[in-house]
Amino acid sequence: MYVVIPAGGSGTRLWPLSRAAYPKFLHPLTGDSRTLIQATIDRLAALAPPERTFVVTGGAHVAPIARQIPDVPAANILVEPSPRDSAAAIGLAAAIIARRDPEAIMGSFHADHLVRDEDLFRETVRLAERAAREGYLMTIGIAPTAPETGYGYIKWGESLTVADTFLVQQFKEKPSLAIAEGWLAEGGYLWNSGMFVWRCAALLDELARQQPELYEGLIRIADSWDTPAGQETLTAIWPTLPKLPIDVAVMEGAAAAGRVGTVPGHFGWNDIGDWHTLGEVLGHGDTANVVLNGDAAHHLLIDTDCTVIVPNGERIIATLGVHNLVIVDTPDALLVCSRDRAQDVKKLVDALKERDHSPHL
Amino acid sequence: MYVVIPAGGSGTRLWPLSRAAYPKFLHPLTGDSRTLIQATIDRLAALAPPERTFVVTGGAHVAPIARQIPDVPAANILVEPSPRDSAAAIGLAAAIIARRDPEAIMGSFHADHLVRDEDLFRETVRLAERAAREGYLMTIGIAPTAPETGYGYIKWGESLTVADTFLVQQFKEKPSLAIAEGWLAEGGYLWNSGMFVWRCAALLDELARQQPELYEGLIRIADSWDTPAGQETLTAIWPTLPKLPIDVAVMEGAAAAGRVGTVPGHFGWNDIGDWHTLGEVLGHGDTANVVLNGDAAHHLLIDTDCTVIVPNGERIIATLGVHNLVIVDTPDALLVCSRDRAQDVKKLVDALKERDHSPHL
Repeated sequence: MYVVIPAGGSGTRLWPLSRAAYPKFLHPLTGDSRTLIQATIDRLAALAPPERTFVVTGGAHVAPIARQIPDVPAANILVEPSPRDSAAAIGLAAAIIARRDPEAIMGSFHADHLVRDEDLFRETVRLAERAAREGYLMTIGIAPTAPETGYGYIKWGESLTVADTFLVQQFKEKPSLAIAEGWLAEGGYLWNSGMFVWRCAALLDELARQQPELYEGLIRIADSWDTPAGQETLTAIWPTLPKLPIDVAVMEGAAAAGRVGTVPGHFGWNDIGDWHTLGEVLGHGDTANVVLNGDAAHHLLIDTDCTVIVPNGERIIATLGVHNLVIVDTPDALLVCSRDRAQDVKKLVDALKERDHSPHL
Repeated sequence: MYVVIPAGGSGTRLWPLSRAAYPKFLHPLTGDSRTLIQATIDRLAALAPPERTFVVTGGAHVAPIARQIPDVPAANILVEPSPRDSAAAIGLAAAIIARRDPEAIMGSFHADHLVRDEDLFRETVRLAERAAREGYLMTIGIAPTAPETGYGYIKWGESLTVADTFLVQQFKEKPSLAIAEGWLAEGGYLWNSGMFVWRCAALLDELARQQPELYEGLIRIADSWDTPAGQETLTAIWPTLPKLPIDVAVMEGAAAAGRVGTVPGHFGWNDIGDWHTLGEVLGHGDTANVVLNGDAAHHLLIDTDCTVIVPNGERIIATLGVHNLVIVDTPDALLVCSRDRAQDVKKLVDALKERDHSPHL
């Protein structure tokens, strides 16, 4: 199969580490020295070799991505001339791959997710691949472990012919807590992880049916991609493409037509949305402190617990008598935040935007 | 009168701002842009002109002191070849001044104290000066406002002839909390601020009586001070001088002999021993945040209270949902500490010493 990694989104709630110019997937938030996009590539390497691995990203992030994942051919890092949302980004990769290999199956995986059981993850993707060969647009659903209100949900129904795969009845918007609790009690709902597996041709068929303007543009770009006019065509057509998320552009309509399937994933998944969540994932939920990439010589914690610390190089970080904090040190900005308020870090970023603090955003 | 400022002590509990190489009196901990030693010089300027103002300090601190207080003649910054404690430091200044001006009165004031009512402070010093003219070794006592266990105490007795000055019965070591509470209830006790006023000759007489070895050495240094052999004599004799604090060397014995007086000071005094205290003094005791020398463009505090913040230049400090913290940012070390634990910052410094983190100490 082919692997496509749309690498976008700034990760505002992970400020001040994650910035518009250097977003979260470029940072080592994995618990080891690898960045999120490096860990993503490693996790998928057994499913697709580097030559069949593609990244779609904006011009500002191409250079650091190219250096972080040297095994992926430079020509496979597709550069969006401007942000046109995920339908255009993923559709571009699908159209280019399909023109070269009409029977190709591709999986689309975000650059900034963490997975606990990588073997189980790959088994799940291979199940999705088998159902995708039968024509379904497959999503990897995540078996919910809590009534999360920060994710969209998938309602699943009857079994497909491939074992452990199911038809998707409906995509659901992010719910209220009461509704999420109801779904969790009722069963039959999965979190929408935004990971997809399909035949490129099946996706393009749905695009042609539901988003003909987007489809036409992508096909024209793909037709000239491997010719001398490729860049010129991209530059001319890209700004005219409809700006839509893939769920809205294709998946909801395809589900209504009975063309979407899902595999419930039990591999331990997290999208590392905020510092508290990062602390839970890397600290395995206990009350210990989490020091990211911390050289023990450079931090000194006395009577400190439940605290997430992100050091900045050689600077010493010393804490005394504190708990439940997030401390993120960067060369030009320092955050000290209660873990309970980690979701509200975006308020700080909004306040800095109002002050026009662009170097810090 | 003459003013002598012994400038020593590293202020360990004000780490990471205060360091052995750049101690607290060199930092702007005054609530305005002046450093503690600059504020000390300003406070005393109406009592002694720069030509009669002396500083005694170690070689490591001479250059920054010389730059911070440019009005004090360079020759008045006396450099100790090695640390020999306060009796030698203050005695050296007294011996040099007395040789030039046998009737001289001098006051000795630490470089790192804050005073709220400076007019009242100077009136108090002038009362002490009048009693010193009668031969007493005068101390400025501080009327206690709480049962502090971090200070020594002075027990005062009968009135001297100068109004509002009293004989000192006894110097007391730092007490336990129970004893301090008893003294506060009983009355008749003052905090020992370490500020003294005396005729230089009276101090030297007591040194000759109680510490003849120290006296002889200081007199030999002073006799050659204004000659070409001055530095050579200092270098030869200084390392042989007894190493004693002035209280132990002279004041306790002089009090026992009925030669020490005191003026109770009501001018609002603080020795800025730790970050919590600094927050209380600069925040006037209320629950507001205290941002030291903070350019408002460089900090952003949301839902934050009772927090003391010491920024580091252009770096942004952002806080969210925190209270009762101390956050001190420096180029090579960051402290995040509960205000309740401010006294224990020295534990952090001790731990860093054990790790041999000398650049950070």
